[in-house]
Amino acid sequence: MSSVIDIRLPDGAVKQMPTGSTPFDVAREISEGLARAIVSASYNGTVVETKTPLNENGELVLYTFNDAAGKQAFWHSSAHLLAQALEQLYPDIKLTIGPAIESGFYYDVDTGEHTITEKDLAVIEKRMLELARGKHEFSMREASKADALTFYENAGNEYKTELIENLEDGTITFCDHDDFTDLCRGGHIPNTGIVKAVKLTNIAGAYWRGDENNKQLTRIYGVTFPKQKLLTEHLELIEEAKKRDHRKLGAELELFTFSQKVGQGLPLWLPKGAALRERLEQFLRKAQTKAGYDQVVTPHIGQKELYVTSGHYEKYGADSFQPINTPAEGEEFLLKPMNCPHHCEIFNASPWSYRDLPIRYAEFGTVYRYEQSGELHGLTRVRGFTQDDAHIFCTPEQLNDEFIGVIDLVLYVFNALGFKDFKTQVSVRDPEKPEKYIGDTALWEKAEQAIIDAAEQKGLDYVVETGEAAFYGPKLDFMVKDALGRSWQLGTIQVDYNLPERFDLNYKGSDNEMHRPVMIHRAPFGSMERFVAILIEHTGGNFPLWLTPTQVQLLCVSEKHEKYAKKVSKFLENNEIRALVDDRSETIGKKIREAEMSKVPYMVIIGEQEAVQQTVSVRQHGGNDLGAMPLDTFATLIKNRAAEEIEIFTTN
Amino acid sequence: MSSVIDIRLPDGAVKQMPTGSTPFDVAREISEGLARAIVSASYNGTVVETKTPLNENGELVLYTFNDAAGKQAFWHSSAHLLAQALEQLYPDIKLTIGPAIESGFYYDVDTGEHTITEKDLAVIEKRMLELARGKHEFSMREASKADALTFYENAGNEYKTELIENLEDGTITFCDHDDFTDLCRGGHIPNTGIVKAVKLTNIAGAYWRGDENNKQLTRIYGVTFPKQKLLTEHLELIEEAKKRDHRKLGAELELFTFSQKVGQGLPLWLPKGAALRERLEQFLRKAQTKAGYDQVVTPHIGQKELYVTSGHYEKYGADSFQPINTPAEGEEFLLKPMNCPHHCEIFNASPWSYRDLPIRYAEFGTVYRYEQSGELHGLTRVRGFTQDDAHIFCTPEQLNDEFIGVIDLVLYVFNALGFKDFKTQVSVRDPEKPEKYIGDTALWEKAEQAIIDAAEQKGLDYVVETGEAAFYGPKLDFMVKDALGRSWQLGTIQVDYNLPERFDLNYKGSDNEMHRPVMIHRAPFGSMERFVAILIEHTGGNFPLWLTPTQVQLLCVSEKHEKYAKKVSKFLENNEIRALVDDRSETIGKKIREAEMSKVPYMVIIGEQEAVQQTVSVRQHGGNDLGAMPLDTFATLIKNRAAEEIEIFTTN
Repeated sequence: MSSVIDIRLPDGAVKQMPTGSTPFDVAREISEGLARAIVSASYNGTVVETKTPLNENGELVLYTFNDAAGKQAFWHSSAHLLAQALEQLYPDIKLTIGPAIESGFYYDVDTGEHTITEKDLAVIEKRMLELARGKHEFSMREASKADALTFYENAGNEYKTELIENLEDGTITFCDHDDFTDLCRGGHIPNTGIVKAVKLTNIAGAYWRGDENNKQLTRIYGVTFPKQKLLTEHLELIEEAKKRDHRKLGAELELFTFSQKVGQGLPLWLPKGAALRERLEQFLRKAQTKAGYDQVVTPHIGQKELYVTSGHYEKYGADSFQPINTPAEGEEFLLKPMNCPHHCEIFNASPWSYRDLPIRYAEFGTVYRYEQSGELHGLTRVRGFTQDDAHIFCTPEQLNDEFIGVIDLVLYVFNALGFKDFKTQVSVRDPEKPEKYIGDTALWEKAEQAIIDAAEQKGLDYVVETGEAAFYGPKLDFMVKDALGRSWQLGTIQVDYNLPERFDLNYKGSDNEMHRPVMIHRAPFGSMERFVAILIEHTGGNFPLWLTPTQVQLLCVSEKHEKYAKKVSKFLENNEIRALVDDRSETIGKKIREAEMSKVPYMVIIGEQEAVQQTVSVRQHGGNDLGAMPLDTFATLIKNRAAEEIEIFTTN
Repeated sequence: MSSVIDIRLPDGAVKQMPTGSTPFDVAREISEGLARAIVSASYNGTVVETKTPLNENGELVLYTFNDAAGKQAFWHSSAHLLAQALEQLYPDIKLTIGPAIESGFYYDVDTGEHTITEKDLAVIEKRMLELARGKHEFSMREASKADALTFYENAGNEYKTELIENLEDGTITFCDHDDFTDLCRGGHIPNTGIVKAVKLTNIAGAYWRGDENNKQLTRIYGVTFPKQKLLTEHLELIEEAKKRDHRKLGAELELFTFSQKVGQGLPLWLPKGAALRERLEQFLRKAQTKAGYDQVVTPHIGQKELYVTSGHYEKYGADSFQPINTPAEGEEFLLKPMNCPHHCEIFNASPWSYRDLPIRYAEFGTVYRYEQSGELHGLTRVRGFTQDDAHIFCTPEQLNDEFIGVIDLVLYVFNALGFKDFKTQVSVRDPEKPEKYIGDTALWEKAEQAIIDAAEQKGLDYVVETGEAAFYGPKLDFMVKDALGRSWQLGTIQVDYNLPERFDLNYKGSDNEMHRPVMIHRAPFGSMERFVAILIEHTGGNFPLWLTPTQVQLLCVSEKHEKYAKKVSKFLENNEIRALVDDRSETIGKKIREAEMSKVPYMVIIGEQEAVQQTVSVRQHGGNDLGAMPLDTFATLIKNRAAEEIEIFTTN
């Protein structure tokens, strides 16, 4: 073994360190601040402890709590703390598994004769914090399968023994801290002391190994932070997210509903929701028409053979809605899981010359995909949804221009809907696994370069992810941050060499020979359902003025002013402004409060003075009082603001 | 037997006639002209011969060829003539059945060793006319089953004996004319002499009794008329109808296509067709919004239970697309055959007060119903179609007003689409069969009266058909005549007491009690597919200006003028006028001819003079030359004409 090793850092710098140095040592080499901040590390792509000795040359990544990998180590370690606290408080309970999850961690325990409820959580939290303060280091050790089994047999824990039975001897590790030991694959923070804030968020039932034939265990969810302030912010975010939950707001704003009789995961769009969705569709239709798209309309079913041709049957057939038989003639149809096969058949219905391309078929196409009922969630996970789908058929030479055109359209959509903060990811082949991909290597290279060039040209903030491409082509995805800083995947642009092959698509080139077109799949919204859900959570129901169901609420001070209110309402309607009249016999104060609740952007108070002067007194949602103004001034104000939100889309 | 009987005529007049007088005698009593014109009659609701002696009081209807019943007798009698001619020309053939059909008649024959082909038809026609000139009277006689069987056994005709086997003794009649006899239920013209024009239109194969396991027979189709001129007109109409066939024009105008892979009867709307359909939808949406409808959006599937509740499963389940199973959880879904159950579930999602009603839910809802492949026909018989559906939920007191509102909407639609000639039918209960109908008798009476009152108030040309109501409520149907005089059923308004019961729909009345709303189903177009098909055949592809895919074709005299053509095109686009540029290097003459063929309403010729003067030279489709005019004059002309076609819809 050499006495020094070369450790390369993500910025490319190489540190020469004594053999056996730990990630923590490297961090301290860089700065004391970093050494205090690191919570975990990976070496040569494998998770290591911050105290793991490094004995060979390699690439080191140091993680702080701000990194996703850092949070995972932090929460994984916190699960150990939770388990330790539980064992101390409920001596004869049996631990099973306790992983870190996207936002925190949980532990599943068999509580035996104990019952743990919400009101016990504060005591457990307190114990966890006491234990954390001991600054106990986590330390990994290997164990033989026999020793590991003996350890848990002695403890009478049949869950852990079952887990170990399924592990291979030589791969089994334990983690010790303080007086507590757990079966564990590693990846911890340096010591318990950096866990400064603990919140156990929820208790639920969970079957051992997720199988309802097994015993039901108690699952305790929690989240921890290195600072109290971060926990406070986290809890505030959760509270705010709850208020913005699209399922809650969707019901309150009367946008959509579900019916057990119609079926789970099949939204029914109520009048206000359907109108909002229609405005979104028309908005995109207009932009797409300007960008040279043609709308088409295709059925929601297709013969099984269609999806055998497209390959969708092989991929989705068994796991999706099953075939529809006919009462005679022995035909078999499928609910369409995707619109592309139908669009390929439309393309195939006519002969094409290179002069006709690109052809761009757009459709708000409703597709159906089976999801297990437990996975359904409001409008974000449904069984039927309408994609703002389009397929572009172009020559390989047109790919770059088409990509730029689609990016322009996506950015226009995001801008008009108030999504300002987004990142993009270019997913390309793994060049070392050519067998995973269909299509000519030269075409792939050309397509990947076309996407990257387009991203560069449009100045996108993008990362290239190798090996993340679909088997049929590279793609560009848009990840948008919402008002709460949550990231959502919206908008995708995918290149496809597969379907043109499978459907034998052709055009006659300038050389008079037949050629395969390239296909681009794209959906700026993704689906109407998912997009509206995200929009609700992003805006908290305060939709852009151009889109919102009711733009103006007219509030009558008393019944005397109803006639003038009707006149104002008619005037606004003639100006294509969506107004509602609140002529209930309630106090004006109550009417204002309720209009605020319903998130209408403008309230107009109609009283004696307004009726006499033929004006309106205008308040903005949120309390800003704009005072009295003539009717046409008000109408112009609304129209201008709505028009500014949707600037005219111009293609390059 | 009394020596005179009272014969009541449809106008209410009563003729006293000697017992045993014939319908022909009654006609002669009225006028010699009528006596010459009558071709058949019915007495007390039963078809009789014009020479049948009338022996009791009763109601007589006399039919001329202009009546549907008159045509049926004429064509039924002509089938006898065809059979007679065939027996004479092919002595050993076997006759089977030969009914009158909607437009003519046919006879199915087993030709034995003969083969009859298209080129034999002229000879058969000639023989029919020769026989007709004999002025042979048709005369009915009764026969015992034994005699009837003997007659055909002697003739060696196993088809007729099979038919007779299935008849009851005492109900069997023969018809004789000249030397020819056929098994026949009656309903003939006075004599063969009034058949003046014969055309055998087609020969096809047909299985005995429609069963493909039986022997294939030869079916000869024909049509006859009392005047040569009527035949000529009929043949011209068929020629014109062929030219207007929506399947032919739909392909030529690139409106829609079908794909064997997607499936039969599932139209794919091409860009021009989808855009036209979208304009129709937006046109109706706008009118519906003004009329107080709310759009909703619902999925294309629903749980089987939903349709069990609605009763659709019991009615359509076995004959339609079969249930869709899920890969897990054992759920069963159906493609929706109707939108109403979904709308009932939306209604049921909220509590309602009488003050909230009427609620009007509209949806362009695509439904799927299995049809046998042999019954599919272009866009008029399909397996998936989009209804311009709406359901109104109202109080019984609101029914009349709602009906008037719907009639206004239907008339507005017909007017904007150029359907000027229509009739309506009010379908009511058979009061003698109350067991056939669901719902309270008092409500039925109220609803029937509400429909009749509405029809009266709107001055509709309506007939009341007793016993034609659906089991769930009375209805009003619109029958429209197209440009060729063909009648189509378009638009239906139906009252429904059934679904409100089945879905337990409620609203709180002013009495604070819960009440059942009444439902109205209505669809002015019927379906988008069927309506577009009829519109194509009605207009021959010359759509109204507001609707037509391309409003203006710009024809460049030479390449030099392309730049100015682009400018004109941009100007028109900015004025929301749909224009295409024909910049091919073809002669202007050819371009004009092709634009005429493609039925574009306005052609604009762009040459040197127009480019210099910044004008356009305008020709209307059909050849009318409007001369040169400035661009804005032309744009105003187009916009005004399109706007006139769609007058603003005002509700009462």
